[in-house]
Amino acid sequence: MGNIILTGDRPTGKLHLGHYVGSLRNRLKLQEEGNYDEMYIMIADSQALTDNFDNPKKIQDNLHEVILDYLSVGLNPEKVTFFIQSKVNALTTLTYYYMNLVSVSRLERNPTIKTEIKQRGFEQSVPAGFLSYPVSQAADITGFNANVIPVGEDQLPLLEQTNEIVRSFNRIYGDTLRECNAYLEKNDIAKRLPGIDGNAKMSKSLGNCIYLSDTSEDVYKKVMSMYTDPNHIKIEDPGKVEENMVFTYLDVFATDEQIKKYSEFNSLDEMKEKYKRGGLGDVKIKKVLFQVIEDLLEPIREKRKYYEEHLDEVDKILKEGTMKAISTANKTLDRVKKAIGIDYFE
Amino acid sequence: MGNIILTGDRPTGKLHLGHYVGSLRNRLKLQEEGNYDEMYIMIADSQALTDNFDNPKKIQDNLHEVILDYLSVGLNPEKVTFFIQSKVNALTTLTYYYMNLVSVSRLERNPTIKTEIKQRGFEQSVPAGFLSYPVSQAADITGFNANVIPVGEDQLPLLEQTNEIVRSFNRIYGDTLRECNAYLEKNDIAKRLPGIDGNAKMSKSLGNCIYLSDTSEDVYKKVMSMYTDPNHIKIEDPGKVEENMVFTYLDVFATDEQIKKYSEFNSLDEMKEKYKRGGLGDVKIKKVLFQVIEDLLEPIREKRKYYEEHLDEVDKILKEGTMKAISTANKTLDRVKKAIGIDYFE
Repeated sequence: MGNIILTGDRPTGKLHLGHYVGSLRNRLKLQEEGNYDEMYIMIADSQALTDNFDNPKKIQDNLHEVILDYLSVGLNPEKVTFFIQSKVNALTTLTYYYMNLVSVSRLERNPTIKTEIKQRGFEQSVPAGFLSYPVSQAADITGFNANVIPVGEDQLPLLEQTNEIVRSFNRIYGDTLRECNAYLEKNDIAKRLPGIDGNAKMSKSLGNCIYLSDTSEDVYKKVMSMYTDPNHIKIEDPGKVEENMVFTYLDVFATDEQIKKYSEFNSLDEMKEKYKRGGLGDVKIKKVLFQVIEDLLEPIREKRKYYEEHLDEVDKILKEGTMKAISTANKTLDRVKKAIGIDYFE
Repeated sequence: MGNIILTGDRPTGKLHLGHYVGSLRNRLKLQEEGNYDEMYIMIADSQALTDNFDNPKKIQDNLHEVILDYLSVGLNPEKVTFFIQSKVNALTTLTYYYMNLVSVSRLERNPTIKTEIKQRGFEQSVPAGFLSYPVSQAADITGFNANVIPVGEDQLPLLEQTNEIVRSFNRIYGDTLRECNAYLEKNDIAKRLPGIDGNAKMSKSLGNCIYLSDTSEDVYKKVMSMYTDPNHIKIEDPGKVEENMVFTYLDVFATDEQIKKYSEFNSLDEMKEKYKRGGLGDVKIKKVLFQVIEDLLEPIREKRKYYEEHLDEVDKILKEGTMKAISTANKTLDRVKKAIGIDYFE
């Protein structure tokens, strides 16, 4: 079996530049390299319900936004299978049988989950569904025989949990499931894009995002409000480029060609030097960043416009991908049931 | 909606007189009263895997024994739907979404589970699947809209857990699921039949069972080895009828007509009086009990012989019941998904 890639997002909000840098860009690279037999992208609505069970409308509202975001950035339904997790019932059945192979205390020791429990204020009362979502992830991964999982470093414990389940399963029921490997984004700067307010994380709840679907006007306003150097008051003042969001973003997004095109400088380094010496105003650097982001977002917007006008096509993509996902996961479930010996009447 | 009954067994061993007294007899009564729209009997192989995940062969081996036992005692496929739990995938999907509505600590506080964890030596490491089997039971019950659940008193906390889930679900997602009620066996003596060795519980692991499928020879040997009064050594000795298994079993199974037929006494009370005074030997009372049990088991054996010679008929019964169960549970799952709002493309 060749490489099978599985990745996805919880549809809890529209995707933003943080997603682009942290994962979407990586997926596009994987897609274009083509070093795989299958690439699945899952809209993880079931998983999203594990900590949004009392607000299902949020998930419904964002499901279409997320598929539009995927298509708009250039993820290609000819190369990628998009599907909705909750439509693939086989995944919950796999989860059920994998639950027998994991102890409650093992789930409670998972560092990713520990952090997330704190973030969500679940310390006093963790929903059983939330505590066990790593088991459900093991079902997602093994359900599609995926061996290449693009993740951030904070998610490595989840893949370790999957592989523990795979090893237990294969030991007890015979060789059936495939172990997986993390595909890590190498670029350190790009790991996590900070918010426009300087907060370490770009996040909907912090209101510090630039969305892939933002209009030019939105982006302009947001860039103009970005956190720079609070001590850089007059143009002549020397300015700091570290922890200055405009430069952080330029580091991530700008090429020297763009710097040349949109400023009087030949490179980003030259521009930074000038800013540090004094004499370069925030409005000027923000206008450069605005152009750079527009270069990225304009083609995305165009594609989005197309798909928004062809929602039936979007539906068809999702439906066809989901049908394929159902068929693949059912095959895995058949193998799993056969291995356990509960394949009566087959 | 009229009454819908759901009950069943984990297929971890052949059924014995303890099952007959504790549940099967009760089910026959319910079946004959006919005060229901549907009566489902589930062979709970998936649930049995939650504490036998490393010994699936035990489940496979006993699945057919259990359905043969059901049919042999007179449970009637014309009136009852028999099905295999693991074939009804919708139940695991229901379990998945219900898991979000229960906290881990709530599951850990369940008195039934606490006891069972101790019995199984799971204190140090409880499998997540085992801890959450009450959620899976809630899926079983609600999956069939069952409102009448024949149980022993020790299982009441499980039904309470189901009803808590039902109330949470209905509160969050709108009125969708039906609460259930326990149908308790009233007869105190009959609640739990002791083993032939006098142990409070008849259990395969204690080797103190009379199985419904035992031959006459098996039954004779077992009855002859039964625990009576250890101080009743000579026939003339006065004997105790309390904690004397022969009299305990006669209390449960014998009618005065049978006593008259198989002994020189007119009633069980008369026979007890004689035993207490002295002059009635153990072999004599055991022979009476043997006849009484044979009266019960002989028709069961005959039916079993028929079904063992018509295994294709048994398979057909199981298959048809399972198909019906799949269809019913799928309808519930559709309603549940619609209520949560994850019924895309429908």
